[in-house]
Amino acid sequence: MTEITYLSAQELAEKVSEAMYADDLASQHLGITLDEIGPGTATMSMLVTDVMLNGHKTCHGGYIFTLADTAFAFACNACNQNTVAGAAQINYLKAVPNGTRMIAKAVEINRTKRTGLYDISVTDQDGNLVASFRGNSHTIKGQRIPGLEAKEEEK
Amino acid sequence: MTEITYLSAQELAEKVSEAMYADDLASQHLGITLDEIGPGTATMSMLVTDVMLNGHKTCHGGYIFTLADTAFAFACNACNQNTVAGAAQINYLKAVPNGTRMIAKAVEINRTKRTGLYDISVTDQDGNLVASFRGNSHTIKGQRIPGLEAKEEEK
Amino acid sequence: MTEITYLSAQELAEKVSEAMYADDLASQHLGITLDEIGPGTATMSMLVTDVMLNGHKTCHGGYIFTLADTAFAFACNACNQNTVAGAAQINYLKAVPNGTRMIAKAVEINRTKRTGLYDISVTDQDGNLVASFRGNSHTIKGQRIPGLEAKEEEK
Amino acid sequence: MTEITYLSAQELAEKVSEAMYADDLASQHLGITLDEIGPGTATMSMLVTDVMLNGHKTCHGGYIFTLADTAFAFACNACNQNTVAGAAQINYLKAVPNGTRMIAKAVEINRTKRTGLYDISVTDQDGNLVASFRGNSHTIKGQRIPGLEAKEEEK
Repeated sequence: MTEITYLSAQELAEKVSEAMYADDLASQHLGITLDEIGPGTATMSMLVTDVMLNGHKTCHGGYIFTLADTAFAFACNACNQNTVAGAAQINYLKAVPNGTRMIAKAVEINRTKRTGLYDISVTDQDGNLVASFRGNSHTIKGQRIPGLEAKEEEK
Repeated sequence: MTEITYLSAQELAEKVSEAMYADDLASQHLGITLDEIGPGTATMSMLVTDVMLNGHKTCHGGYIFTLADTAFAFACNACNQNTVAGAAQINYLKAVPNGTRMIAKAVEINRTKRTGLYDISVTDQDGNLVASFRGNSHTIKGQRIPGLEAKEEEK
Repeated sequence: MTEITYLSAQELAEKVSEAMYADDLASQHLGITLDEIGPGTATMSMLVTDVMLNGHKTCHGGYIFTLADTAFAFACNACNQNTVAGAAQINYLKAVPNGTRMIAKAVEINRTKRTGLYDISVTDQDGNLVASFRGNSHTIKGQRIPGLEAKEEEK
Repeated sequence: MTEITYLSAQELAEKVSEAMYADDLASQHLGITLDEIGPGTATMSMLVTDVMLNGHKTCHGGYIFTLADTAFAFACNACNQNTVAGAAQINYLKAVPNGTRMIAKAVEINRTKRTGLYDISVTDQDGNLVASFRGNSHTIKGQRIPGLEAKEEEK
């Protein structure tokens, strides 16, 4: 039986996100960096490169989505309860040129035992909103790091 | 002034998609292939590779989205009127393992002068639905290939 | 302990929807009728009346949504497993004038033990698509009519 | 030709919303009240009554949506440029019992010449979030009150 270690919610988020990032080939390969993590929140960024450009010579919407989706995943797993995306919606607000550093900030809107709702804003390096993303998560069985939990008062 | 050449809607879709694909570095880089194109429809596929895997060792949702978004873009531009994605929504239905060939089929649900609605289903090579995507498009100024139009009876 | 009675999936859908409708004051009050029901499907209709008109003198989007949402609820509960809406999305395609009979057809896109995805099209009496709705459902505990189940081969 | 009168953005929002409400039979009939209005924002509320209850004896999702959709409409028209809903998405977070006063607050996330994005939160009278709504708007021709505009510095 796994012994339980209690951490602050912030420490837990840091441990979990570190372990997640180490396993996440997709994020590493895209050069996505984890800039900030907290209980239910994550800030991640990515540089738009040549191979991300569509026929309009701006960033393919799929890569904007991918960055937001990654921040969503880190935010909704930060409590160490395994959680997966069920659905997501994106609104594209501004074309993103090559060379832009995009920053995705995820915040938790709601969380129940089984489901969660997160908002992710994607801005460029000058703070202009380029996309707005909303994600629905489902809690599944298991913990990212077995045996780690947040102290009661911190949950 | 541009002289207008009239093609069948099918021929027009083929010409436009060929030109789009040639310019679309992102799709080429991901190994996305254009398998079928028609007026308001597109079928595109992509092989899931190592660099697309998330921490669960299944395809990162961002890549499933990107394939669907690409089929959406090709379908909504097939009439040669420049069209961009305004919003999109995805429901993830099944985890996608490494090595899967994902197939996205886009169909037009509605199209007006200014907006369009498209449904894109993503299946694996065995026909299992792995994600369902819905995209909203906006018509903008200009044509992909200036001077090409569909014959009236074909619009 | 409840004794289990087995019905065909169609008979089960009919029993469940009859019981649901009898309890559903909102649908009755709006004059929504249940026109067809089946396993995972429902067709319901509603007449647009004066009190449903917005400032443009067309049907308030909320009533179009409500009709679609109702068909969604009947379709996703037809298997007698208690199911609730988790999220829904609507695209408005055409303004709906006073006096229109709107018809909502719900079909099941996907269903797992815990979640479901349904598409609902709303047309006018002439078959024109006026709105397209997509709903996500969550299965909860309990049955609408305790003890009724579909025969295995019909599930 | 219409003579142009310039108001502050706040005064304009008040004039427009007053005119909208006077014409909006649906909102009046449902007992929806306009509690606050501003440039791109609106707060509206509604009491859940018997006829709004579904078979679970909680508020039919359609009525929660309708309240949110109404606040969305008032917020996106507050600038006196005719604007209609193109799409909307709702996440249901909490069942709403009979007798609840629901409060919808709409805020503008983004607005361009042709499109807008709004977030609407719906809470109960105790401030608990019961639903989260996101709406996409399209600007159309015409003004709600011809000849009224916001002063430049207020836009």
